[in-house]
Amino acid sequence: MDTHSQEENDDGDVDLHRRRPKVGAEPGTLALPEDSPRPVIRLTSYSEGSFVERKIGQPGEISRWLDSDECVWIDVQGLGDEQVLFELAEVFGLHPLALEDIVHVPQRPKTQSYENHQLLFTRMLSGGKNGKVGVEQVSFLIAKNYVVTFQERCGDVFDPVRLRLKTNNKQLRSAKVDYLAYTLLDAIVDAYFPVIDNLGDCIADLEDEVFSGHGSATLHDLAEIRSTLLSVRRSVWPLRDAINQLIRDEVDCFGPDVRIFLRDVYDHCVNASDMVESYRELGASLMNSYLSVVSNRMNEVMKVLTVMSTIFIPLTFLSGLYGMNFVWMPERDWKWSYPILLGVMAMITISLLVYFKRRGWFKRG
Amino acid sequence: MDTHSQEENDDGDVDLHRRRPKVGAEPGTLALPEDSPRPVIRLTSYSEGSFVERKIGQPGEISRWLDSDECVWIDVQGLGDEQVLFELAEVFGLHPLALEDIVHVPQRPKTQSYENHQLLFTRMLSGGKNGKVGVEQVSFLIAKNYVVTFQERCGDVFDPVRLRLKTNNKQLRSAKVDYLAYTLLDAIVDAYFPVIDNLGDCIADLEDEVFSGHGSATLHDLAEIRSTLLSVRRSVWPLRDAINQLIRDEVDCFGPDVRIFLRDVYDHCVNASDMVESYRELGASLMNSYLSVVSNRMNEVMKVLTVMSTIFIPLTFLSGLYGMNFVWMPERDWKWSYPILLGVMAMITISLLVYFKRRGWFKRG
Amino acid sequence: MDTHSQEENDDGDVDLHRRRPKVGAEPGTLALPEDSPRPVIRLTSYSEGSFVERKIGQPGEISRWLDSDECVWIDVQGLGDEQVLFELAEVFGLHPLALEDIVHVPQRPKTQSYENHQLLFTRMLSGGKNGKVGVEQVSFLIAKNYVVTFQERCGDVFDPVRLRLKTNNKQLRSAKVDYLAYTLLDAIVDAYFPVIDNLGDCIADLEDEVFSGHGSATLHDLAEIRSTLLSVRRSVWPLRDAINQLIRDEVDCFGPDVRIFLRDVYDHCVNASDMVESYRELGASLMNSYLSVVSNRMNEVMKVLTVMSTIFIPLTFLSGLYGMNFVWMPERDWKWSYPILLGVMAMITISLLVYFKRRGWFKRG
Amino acid sequence: MDTHSQEENDDGDVDLHRRRPKVGAEPGTLALPEDSPRPVIRLTSYSEGSFVERKIGQPGEISRWLDSDECVWIDVQGLGDEQVLFELAEVFGLHPLALEDIVHVPQRPKTQSYENHQLLFTRMLSGGKNGKVGVEQVSFLIAKNYVVTFQERCGDVFDPVRLRLKTNNKQLRSAKVDYLAYTLLDAIVDAYFPVIDNLGDCIADLEDEVFSGHGSATLHDLAEIRSTLLSVRRSVWPLRDAINQLIRDEVDCFGPDVRIFLRDVYDHCVNASDMVESYRELGASLMNSYLSVVSNRMNEVMKVLTVMSTIFIPLTFLSGLYGMNFVWMPERDWKWSYPILLGVMAMITISLLVYFKRRGWFKRG
Amino acid sequence: MDTHSQEENDDGDVDLHRRRPKVGAEPGTLALPEDSPRPVIRLTSYSEGSFVERKIGQPGEISRWLDSDECVWIDVQGLGDEQVLFELAEVFGLHPLALEDIVHVPQRPKTQSYENHQLLFTRMLSGGKNGKVGVEQVSFLIAKNYVVTFQERCGDVFDPVRLRLKTNNKQLRSAKVDYLAYTLLDAIVDAYFPVIDNLGDCIADLEDEVFSGHGSATLHDLAEIRSTLLSVRRSVWPLRDAINQLIRDEVDCFGPDVRIFLRDVYDHCVNASDMVESYRELGASLMNSYLSVVSNRMNEVMKVLTVMSTIFIPLTFLSGLYGMNFVWMPERDWKWSYPILLGVMAMITISLLVYFKRRGWFKRG
Repeated sequence: MDTHSQEENDDGDVDLHRRRPKVGAEPGTLALPEDSPRPVIRLTSYSEGSFVERKIGQPGEISRWLDSDECVWIDVQGLGDEQVLFELAEVFGLHPLALEDIVHVPQRPKTQSYENHQLLFTRMLSGGKNGKVGVEQVSFLIAKNYVVTFQERCGDVFDPVRLRLKTNNKQLRSAKVDYLAYTLLDAIVDAYFPVIDNLGDCIADLEDEVFSGHGSATLHDLAEIRSTLLSVRRSVWPLRDAINQLIRDEVDCFGPDVRIFLRDVYDHCVNASDMVESYRELGASLMNSYLSVVSNRMNEVMKVLTVMSTIFIPLTFLSGLYGMNFVWMPERDWKWSYPILLGVMAMITISLLVYFKRRGWFKRG
Repeated sequence: MDTHSQEENDDGDVDLHRRRPKVGAEPGTLALPEDSPRPVIRLTSYSEGSFVERKIGQPGEISRWLDSDECVWIDVQGLGDEQVLFELAEVFGLHPLALEDIVHVPQRPKTQSYENHQLLFTRMLSGGKNGKVGVEQVSFLIAKNYVVTFQERCGDVFDPVRLRLKTNNKQLRSAKVDYLAYTLLDAIVDAYFPVIDNLGDCIADLEDEVFSGHGSATLHDLAEIRSTLLSVRRSVWPLRDAINQLIRDEVDCFGPDVRIFLRDVYDHCVNASDMVESYRELGASLMNSYLSVVSNRMNEVMKVLTVMSTIFIPLTFLSGLYGMNFVWMPERDWKWSYPILLGVMAMITISLLVYFKRRGWFKRG
Repeated sequence: MDTHSQEENDDGDVDLHRRRPKVGAEPGTLALPEDSPRPVIRLTSYSEGSFVERKIGQPGEISRWLDSDECVWIDVQGLGDEQVLFELAEVFGLHPLALEDIVHVPQRPKTQSYENHQLLFTRMLSGGKNGKVGVEQVSFLIAKNYVVTFQERCGDVFDPVRLRLKTNNKQLRSAKVDYLAYTLLDAIVDAYFPVIDNLGDCIADLEDEVFSGHGSATLHDLAEIRSTLLSVRRSVWPLRDAINQLIRDEVDCFGPDVRIFLRDVYDHCVNASDMVESYRELGASLMNSYLSVVSNRMNEVMKVLTVMSTIFIPLTFLSGLYGMNFVWMPERDWKWSYPILLGVMAMITISLLVYFKRRGWFKRG
Repeated sequence: MDTHSQEENDDGDVDLHRRRPKVGAEPGTLALPEDSPRPVIRLTSYSEGSFVERKIGQPGEISRWLDSDECVWIDVQGLGDEQVLFELAEVFGLHPLALEDIVHVPQRPKTQSYENHQLLFTRMLSGGKNGKVGVEQVSFLIAKNYVVTFQERCGDVFDPVRLRLKTNNKQLRSAKVDYLAYTLLDAIVDAYFPVIDNLGDCIADLEDEVFSGHGSATLHDLAEIRSTLLSVRRSVWPLRDAINQLIRDEVDCFGPDVRIFLRDVYDHCVNASDMVESYRELGASLMNSYLSVVSNRMNEVMKVLTVMSTIFIPLTFLSGLYGMNFVWMPERDWKWSYPILLGVMAMITISLLVYFKRRGWFKRG
Repeated sequence: MDTHSQEENDDGDVDLHRRRPKVGAEPGTLALPEDSPRPVIRLTSYSEGSFVERKIGQPGEISRWLDSDECVWIDVQGLGDEQVLFELAEVFGLHPLALEDIVHVPQRPKTQSYENHQLLFTRMLSGGKNGKVGVEQVSFLIAKNYVVTFQERCGDVFDPVRLRLKTNNKQLRSAKVDYLAYTLLDAIVDAYFPVIDNLGDCIADLEDEVFSGHGSATLHDLAEIRSTLLSVRRSVWPLRDAINQLIRDEVDCFGPDVRIFLRDVYDHCVNASDMVESYRELGASLMNSYLSVVSNRMNEVMKVLTVMSTIFIPLTFLSGLYGMNFVWMPERDWKWSYPILLGVMAMITISLLVYFKRRGWFKRG
């Protein structure tokens, strides 16, 4: 997960600031993601009996693979070269706006039908351990006999799938390319859960910190995790609608048997949304608790001040009284004045302590 | 209810952390619930005239019971053996994804149609007395002449139904297997109400504690019960949609006469949802009350401090004034200075007390 | 309204704790409301020309009245005898689940169609003057030529309708039994408004108390009235859906001319819902105001403390300074030291008072 | 606007307390608005060439005007005479429930179709300058060739329309009666905007008061304006639905050309709703700001107290120390004790001031 | 962006106060925006081969351009002359209500179909850097072969498009007028993002200020930015519905190929709405954080006060005690009294410090 460390150090709103071309620019103008590496293209061609994997240098090489009967998966990692992207768009017959959406990350997760292919924009999440989440756009182009995936930067989320293809996994190798698309999508959605679980652990830790009264940076952490959950929600919620659209609209590129599997991914998305919503509610409720804890602690401080002041201020007054230098102060000259005054002071202290005890000021909370 | 004691000791979010296979794993891979016991399979075969109940050792034994004309109920308690589960899946013709959903507890309550059977995922609730609720997944597989129930661990929620079957209850024995499915589902939904009632009692207790001003751990309890209610809501709310789907979609495996009974279960679910929502609103409103009570109590403390300080600080000043050692202080040498000063102090005290009384500081609240 | 005094003394959530049979009990088992009196059955048979009213001892007697051409209204007050209820169910051909819903009060308001009759479950409200509301279930069974009403306990809400029947009210006597059902339903819904008005008066009183700063138990009252409004909402909101269903589904037992009147009842329900929602918003906003008032009052207290302390603490220091007993303190021996010090103290006091005045501390608010 | 001054002095909830007949009263019983004047009926009959306007004493006189080919507008101001209302109902063939709705003000804005005419219930708003709004019901009866308007009390909102009719406004005089109905409705909806603008100005003023820290009654005003906005919302929101219904249901009495104009009124209603919602949000956000301002101000007060106390309390202790009368206190007899102590005191004061300055306590905010 | 500097200095609610004619005025009466300049009309006529751009003095001149086969774009900047507007309305066959909507800025974004053309009302946003946003209405009239744009004041938002037309941009010049309309709309929507990004930066700055505890005017800024976001939302949200309506209703004036581009604008609108909602949530959550920070800071102040008071008040009492002048006070005459008392005082101080340290009062937060 090394490649995402950069995002994880940003604030949670990494998905709000989208790269865009200058206002008023011609539609179709590309604004490349600044820090995206040059594209690395990996082509995997497979059927039940064969398996070929190779790196592609020139997008033009791809065309001849697409004409075969094999299933082809082209994985493009990195969006940092305009020229290569335009050539890829030509090879796959991409609409200029579609290419724009692939490059101008992050897009809201969505799906779009074009004549020869279906586009699906998703977001991959990573991290979550320290309340921060890395967001990366993964775009799918699903055609009759090939799938193209565009990743914002080099990553390893699809490695398990690639391994299963290589090791001659029967279920995957014998199926059509739509099953591969489902498998890749499933890998992305499944990766949401550890991230959300991490965030849940963060909230649980924060809850402990809030109620234990220790932990200095709590308030800032609370604000941050709520902002991160908002960001995760923006990734998960629209994807669920997009997948539902794939199921409901009976999109051509997904066969009826794969649609059952898509329904399962949809269920996972709904689950993830539910979990995010629950954590958001818990976060909001924790904020309230935090406010109450602060109030309670202030109450404690006030009680200490009040107990001390209320006991000693009258005593100080009394001692000040007999420090006066008036000529005529008869008590001053009596022998028992001093012990009597000490006794009176003790009585005042005791009765105030009893009063405070009765009002429950010595209990915590 | 002994078997659920473990969950009840966890925090309320027991249903958020789902067990899942490794990210990128092949669809259909099972991640068994860690603490789930080995499956115990109990088969009940009955008709109006006959009743057989026995423990099944090998899933393969079940097949021959399914071919008879009798109604068959297979109750699987515990999900702790992958081998047995795969064999069961084969016997009943379960889709790999369906088996996954049964094992990867907790699932969001939902229903799914397959060619030969209907699947229904529900959650059983228990406890609630101390503001904590145990959640256990119960999955239903409803086919033409048999019902299979999968429970996460061994429990007794279906015992009353089993007893009614055994004691030759006419209504149940003469009906088809869909009526049995309804009866089992009804038993689960009916068990929601005592749990929710317990939570309601918890909230009422908390309300008393909040307004009485005693009770130390109130804030934490309040946060906990709100989190528990959130968890209960996640169990009840989607079930109501699932049951509605069973009624509305006119699912094959439920006859029209049983659908009237399902409508009743649906009503119960709506009732339970309503109650949970009401308690959630009461909980949120209680949090506000708690904040107000804390503020009020701080107000009380401040008043005590202010009354004491405001009265004694001027008096202390006056006595300090005449404790000065200036050579020339004419008042010091007058005979009536001391009694006059005492009188002035009494007047100050009385007028301040009157002032505070007029501003209502001696009233509570 | 004497009969409802009991509920009014309960807390507002009287409608949450439903009586239910033991979990797992056979569907159709009745759990009688504990304090419900034995049923009193009053039969009214009328047509344009005739009017008969009598008490029925045995449910069996009713059958022969139903066969006539007259309109028949059977009013059952009290649900305290299982035997009588079962006999009534037999006379009217009630489904076991329907009988259960009538007995297991309170049900969520709803309507259900059966082959020969329509069921409607409503709730009657009473009280509201002290922020508490009595809730009682009234169930309607509406058939072709008779209406049965089941009340939880003896009440007088239908007395005006009975009087109008008796006094040969033309509109009512000449109409069919569906107009009677409408009239009875209208009586129940009309009774909502004084209750809601009472609650509105309570909120207005509370608002006065909150802003006047007097009134001790305000916070608890606020919590209580919000809980009561929640309870009223649960009674009114679903009824509006139920009535809408009666209008929209073109239920057989209501003729088209009576449906215009039902539309009016529906409007009343919408009105009542709107009012409850408005009062709920006012209640929530009042809670905020209460918090602000408490904060403001604490501010006042703090200001008094600060003004007094800030003025007298430096003065006390100064007087303490010249109370020291050092051998060498030249000021002590000057003649004008004392008056000069008094002057300095007066200047300090005046400048602090001016400072506080400039910062607006002597204004209220 | 003189006639509405009464309402404007009431609280904002003038529209919640509806006048209603006794509970259980026969449907159709009228409960006249208490302070409504006796009806004044003004009939205007016009066509492109003719214009007649006169006061009607007896409702019966109206009938003969309705038979002509002219467009007729009957404006009824005041609802204070049951007899006149019943006669009017007879003339126009009003359903008893419709008459009830006209009289039992305020109704929720709505529209109802009857065989020969369409009813539309709207609310006129006035005032708003001091955060209070007068609400008056205006009911429309729109038939083929006449429009009847019922106003709760005498007002001048329709005067501009009357003037345009009189001054031979071509557009209005040549159109059918549905265009007149639109014009009247438009006059009512247009009158919402100045009222809402006034409320917006009130909120802006309150915002200034809140942030300037002056203004005594702010909290109460805030609560009041929120309650008023709630009341305005209840007037505007349902009207938008009612007008939409008129457009969508293609109600007979409005021709297709007038329906374009109705669409414009609908847009105005949506605009008004939007504005009310925006102001409601601003009001709620202002309440939060108010709470923060109060907290901030308390913070200021506390800082003054703390600075003063923290500086002078140690000094007072030190001076008290050397006011002790012990026999053996060597410092007392040294010559430089006094100036040294004064120096120490100055150092303590300066270091505390530096400490406070570093923590930013001398900045505002 | 010079021309918008005026709005940016206003408060955020510039779009709430709409200019309207007097209440009751005849429909169609215009109320010109007060500060709008006289209209400047720029006509651009182009086709693949030709390009003409000129200023139009008299609206009447336009007619002859519309009859040609060229695509024509008329850009009207400024709405300050009633006469010119009426003439324009005549040239384009505008409905009086449509002209009203163009002039009475700001309108809620919406679209309306008329016989020969489609109207689209949008809002252009500018600024955002200091938390304030300038709002200006831009109205589109889209007909078969011409597009008319009405801007409230002179601006340069369309300059990039004009430049692309002039520089013989092939895509734009070869397309029909609907593609031009899309391009102009796209320019407006694209301009939303930098404004929203600016607001996001403002919120991030505010967040830093809130958590750093510095920054004086924070509260007011927070209220202002929330009000601005509300205003932006009112601009973006309805536009998304309007564009959706253009796509869904298959409006004549947009060809199917341009509709794909409109879908892209719609996506941008949804994105903008999402971002605004996210920032609104962040703003609301920041308000909570602000309240907590204020409470925390008060807590700090209280702790300082309490530590100082609690330590020195008992010490002052003790020193006062031995400042009393009683005749018989044996301790006074002992030699070691003074050092012993100093030791006792040191012990009291140390034990209190230890107590405070144990309760964690010396930690920040």
